Amino acid sequence: MIDFRTHPDSYRHWRLRIDDRVAYLDMAVDPDGGINPGYELKLNSYDLGVDLELADAVQRLRFEHPEVGAVVIGSVLDRMFCAGANIGMLASASHPLKVNFCKFTNETRNAIEDATRRSGQRYLAALGGNAAGGGYELALAADHIMLIDDRNASVSLPEVPLLGVLPGTGGLTRLTDKRHVRRDHADIFCTFQEGAKGQRALDWRLVDELVPASSFAETVGARAREFAEQSDRPADPGGVELTPLDREIGEDHITYSLLTVSIDRGNRTASIEMTGPEGSPPQDGDEAAAVGAKFWPLRLARELDDAILHLRVNELEIGTVVLHTRGDLDTTLAHDAFLLTQSGHWFVREVQLLWARVLRRLDMTARTIIVLIEPRSCFGGLLAELALAADRSYMLIGSFADEGGHEARLALTEANLIGYPMSNGLSRLETRFWGDPEGHALAREAIGSRLGAEESLAAGLITDAMDDLDWEDELRIVFEERAAFSPDGLTGLEANLRFPGPETMETKIFGRLTAWQNWVFQRPNASGESGALRRYGTGIRPEYDHRRV
Amino acid sequence: MIDFRTHPDSYRHWRLRIDDRVAYLDMAVDPDGGINPGYELKLNSYDLGVDLELADAVQRLRFEHPEVGAVVIGSVLDRMFCAGANIGMLASASHPLKVNFCKFTNETRNAIEDATRRSGQRYLAALGGNAAGGGYELALAADHIMLIDDRNASVSLPEVPLLGVLPGTGGLTRLTDKRHVRRDHADIFCTFQEGAKGQRALDWRLVDELVPASSFAETVGARAREFAEQSDRPADPGGVELTPLDREIGEDHITYSLLTVSIDRGNRTASIEMTGPEGSPPQDGDEAAAVGAKFWPLRLARELDDAILHLRVNELEIGTVVLHTRGDLDTTLAHDAFLLTQSGHWFVREVQLLWARVLRRLDMTARTIIVLIEPRSCFGGLLAELALAADRSYMLIGSFADEGGHEARLALTEANLIGYPMSNGLSRLETRFWGDPEGHALAREAIGSRLGAEESLAAGLITDAMDDLDWEDELRIVFEERAAFSPDGLTGLEANLRFPGPETMETKIFGRLTAWQNWVFQRPNASGESGALRRYGTGIRPEYDHRRV
Repeated sequence: MIDFRTHPDSYRHWRLRIDDRVAYLDMAVDPDGGINPGYELKLNSYDLGVDLELADAVQRLRFEHPEVGAVVIGSVLDRMFCAGANIGMLASASHPLKVNFCKFTNETRNAIEDATRRSGQRYLAALGGNAAGGGYELALAADHIMLIDDRNASVSLPEVPLLGVLPGTGGLTRLTDKRHVRRDHADIFCTFQEGAKGQRALDWRLVDELVPASSFAETVGARAREFAEQSDRPADPGGVELTPLDREIGEDHITYSLLTVSIDRGNRTASIEMTGPEGSPPQDGDEAAAVGAKFWPLRLARELDDAILHLRVNELEIGTVVLHTRGDLDTTLAHDAFLLTQSGHWFVREVQLLWARVLRRLDMTARTIIVLIEPRSCFGGLLAELALAADRSYMLIGSFADEGGHEARLALTEANLIGYPMSNGLSRLETRFWGDPEGHALAREAIGSRLGAEESLAAGLITDAMDDLDWEDELRIVFEERAAFSPDGLTGLEANLRFPGPETMETKIFGRLTAWQNWVFQRPNASGESGALRRYGTGIRPEYDHRRV
Repeated sequence: MIDFRTHPDSYRHWRLRIDDRVAYLDMAVDPDGGINPGYELKLNSYDLGVDLELADAVQRLRFEHPEVGAVVIGSVLDRMFCAGANIGMLASASHPLKVNFCKFTNETRNAIEDATRRSGQRYLAALGGNAAGGGYELALAADHIMLIDDRNASVSLPEVPLLGVLPGTGGLTRLTDKRHVRRDHADIFCTFQEGAKGQRALDWRLVDELVPASSFAETVGARAREFAEQSDRPADPGGVELTPLDREIGEDHITYSLLTVSIDRGNRTASIEMTGPEGSPPQDGDEAAAVGAKFWPLRLARELDDAILHLRVNELEIGTVVLHTRGDLDTTLAHDAFLLTQSGHWFVREVQLLWARVLRRLDMTARTIIVLIEPRSCFGGLLAELALAADRSYMLIGSFADEGGHEARLALTEANLIGYPMSNGLSRLETRFWGDPEGHALAREAIGSRLGAEESLAAGLITDAMDDLDWEDELRIVFEERAAFSPDGLTGLEANLRFPGPETMETKIFGRLTAWQNWVFQRPNASGESGALRRYGTGIRPEYDHRRV
């Protein structure tokens, strides 16, 4: 079982150091610290265990260090920044593990860009040595890449010539769409094992700055301090500690403080029930920060994030995730309003941005997402966003016989318009009504109301509404049917239907690039007995079926 | 060997009839007419042989029938429009054949949309019976879908529930991005084998019009005549016949009138040499139309299109295509200018649109494209577009020793800005300089000049320039290196690097959707011994590995 929870005190692969407003995050991969046996993490090559520490560090810097305005990613090794994803790991990993590994590392790189763009923590990559493959892709996630000019250090994407696979962590998309490397330059770069160094790397926009070896550390520090000065984050320390998540894992249950997961293995379905807030929201952002990791939206977001990751990686056969909420709608809406009105406060902004990332992680999860809106639920504002993220949503008409007249309500707020953008840059509401301005206008009119099932259906906000008599039978059919389908067909279907309309770098990475990589990973030329991944390091050349597809 | 050349006189699967300004194209698939043995094309199910006749008809209608302003796609069968791609064919086809089949059918659907949007031939789908899977996807390519309201006829995409694969011909993208079907409705529709009929099909935007059975033919005809009236095409007949292509296929050579293909099997490379025009262009569009199929740009476009298709399907091991031109640059530029200035004429417009489609077919070809700009070549305007379509382009500095001082020139024109848009909606020049406005401005300044190798390099228009001494050796290394790489890695690399920047429905279909489908096709759940494609029709349920990836 892979546990995504970690803490700087137990990092095996990274060293984190804060110097005034600049954080230094140095890669120091322990060769013997692989998350699975059978490979050695030489030369700062990485596996999922290395990346989940990085993800943890990126997250903590935002919450625990409001004063940090710039983050430098470097390496403790001489002449080596990072050698990329470990090839022994890739060669021995199952297809699902390879795909999950790429997805998570992609999300970590996106989180780095999210911190730079939205959170005032600008990332620099300080390449004091070679950045190869995934190592260069990590650098590409930074806003500014500095390369030591020592006649040796290079950046490279040797996946195609060396391994017969694609750079799997957004490299191709970031080359063309972020750094605007011309496509023929990119073609040469990606097919030349040695990559590029010095002036060529600069001329082809592969790096932003060449720095003489003699002044490397000094120049990196100066540049980072310069960027930190431009940050809108508060200069005085006083962060919010991300305390360890309470979690108990049983056979078919996972229990957190605000969330429980119940697994029905027969239907390959997991139900997640989330608990709404209790009591009034804090007076202001400072009071919220004082509540810290127990602040309801932060606590729930962290628990939901962990639950999604756990299901993705440790429960591969669970094909459907059903989301429920339970709580007081008024209190939920009060917290939703608090987040919106106080979003100028650094901590509140971070909580909102975390929710946005967790929701995007949900969008990118290759499981059917179904939301059930029942009596005593609290799908309001922020939590209504879950209903909009679902592949299907069902709402009860009236009340259950034994629920004393309680009825389900769905309540949209301004948060559903501006609070939690998808990877495509649109709100989930805009995405839902893509190309249908009338439908979108009708749905917007619902903002501020508490809609019953039939009103929600009329406003186009839910998939279907059913009464007590049909509820259980109808849903049983939905779950059984879903469990019987080809999991691959569903993955491809959902990946396409969830993202109508415009594309961004993020959707291109997950849609176009990831799909191609998944395909290449499956192919005998990569993963077969004589494929490049399996032959790497043996001294024997791979044998290719040369038919072009 | 698959031959893409055909003619209405030899159609086995379609009936074409022109009635004044409306064409009726009725599907009448011959069950025994499969292009490969081993399956029966029942119920208007189709294979590549059926689709290449459709592509031919779509093309001919544009050139041979300027008077046709609307095209109705229908069926000769009772209660069945089209059952989609033949499943026996899919189950028995190799992976490359499945992928090539999907790509070509996608291009045919795109050609239908291109005719509607740019050519004044608006397509209607007249569903007098069921449209299932690829049958409904064919209807989705039309601008207007009419469904008979007889309580029986339905539209459906049963691929996921029935076959464990995706609708492979753009269906998912067209549902959400063209018809704006809400994603949860699309989810239900695509997982419900029976699909939708009657009012639900209309309510969910799956069709545009329900027509009572008693007046179906009459209403379809009236609607088509109404659309034809709005066309900007000339009402008086007098088309240009697309005469049979001259082609001779030898062991390693294919010879057309203006184009030859030479195959180097050792380097898995095909060289295509195209000949420029001779003599002055015609005076005007009518004179060009009188020249007909021999009009240089039309003739060359058709030959190039056929050569690309031949290589794609019949020469799977050829991984690199090298493009050369030979001819007089002035004469080429005169023809290029003619096409631009006379583009108001229906025939000239068709020739331009055909070139645009052939160039897009090249962009979508899973082979490395390399352009060599040598002395006596004629890369001007229209033909310069080939250089911009290449993954890499190389140009000779100076002249070859035995060429008497002739030097290579590259000449951009206005055509490179507005004439031949890519699938992403941009010109190839914009795409090349995506995110680099200065580079784009510099390249635009070159319009109207005849650039030598070093000027072309400085303007960013070519990948590299070499002199006589290096030319052969350097290129030999490029070709050998390319031939040694994993063909799958190259396919994925090129598919990503060719399309920086914005995405459209077309690029989403080829990038996102196709990549997912290729992945699903590879998976054991679809293509394995116990997979859904192989088990279909046996009465035995497929066995799935239920791990979600």
